[in-house]
Amino acid sequence: MKYWEDFKIGEATDLGSCAITEEEILAFARKYDPQPFHTDPEAARQSIFGGLVASGWYTCALMMRLSVEAARREDAAATGSPGLDSCRWLRPVRPGDVLAGRTDVLETWPSKTRPIGFVRHRVEMVNQRGEVVMAIVGITMYQRRPGAAV
Amino acid sequence: MKYWEDFKIGEATDLGSCAITEEEILAFARKYDPQPFHTDPEAARQSIFGGLVASGWYTCALMMRLSVEAARREDAAATGSPGLDSCRWLRPVRPGDVLAGRTDVLETWPSKTRPIGFVRHRVEMVNQRGEVVMAIVGITMYQRRPGAAV
Repeated sequence: MKYWEDFKIGEATDLGSCAITEEEILAFARKYDPQPFHTDPEAARQSIFGGLVASGWYTCALMMRLSVEAARREDAAATGSPGLDSCRWLRPVRPGDVLAGRTDVLETWPSKTRPIGFVRHRVEMVNQRGEVVMAIVGITMYQRRPGAAV
Repeated sequence: MKYWEDFKIGEATDLGSCAITEEEILAFARKYDPQPFHTDPEAARQSIFGGLVASGWYTCALMMRLSVEAARREDAAATGSPGLDSCRWLRPVRPGDVLAGRTDVLETWPSKTRPIGFVRHRVEMVNQRGEVVMAIVGITMYQRRPGAAV
């Protein structure tokens, strides 16, 4: 099991990658972000994006799925998140794109009241041209190693 | 049509509300955030949350849907977002909760290069007990009024 104590500042992790399909862009957007440039390829052509683009929240959701799968591979004792310090949607995500995730540990600190610790990390989603399409600074909580002094 | 020029600092908008169901918590989490405290009511009881909780990204997605519906009611010319300055998941969201959204305009500034403007707003999701469960500071882009000098 990978506990909070095992995260080191500067540590980088590849999160793996996922392919973006028009079908999934449309399905997510129709449910959660029904703006025309996310739900209607024809209307999207007339928008400032010049074509269908994924909801930024869909890119967040895919980043989360990659993160959970990577944590499972590492057997990391993640136990939720208090939030994000920032999120930037830097470039459009379009059907046919392939996004890879990578994360770097920026900072770690223990909880003063509970047997958990916090890790601040930067996460980037990068497309098949090497362009960063989304950059997030977020915080994840991990269980402390059993027996750790709190 | 509500253009960028029509947003005033301090302006508050109710986004309406939505009910949280176990079925939707599970469906979202199994697809995008498959951590046991989001996907497995029994495992969740053993977690630090003491029961099933919604993925924070699901709360974000619902906030977005309420925002899009509110923008549609106002006929607002929203045209995407460069990102968030912060997001905090402050309290667990559980099955049976009812979340209401509200947003306040913090700041507005025009693009120097395109016929759009930016609005920085604070969005809160508040549960049926009046507790803020999520607070976001985000930026939305709106079209400029036709004929506006850029």
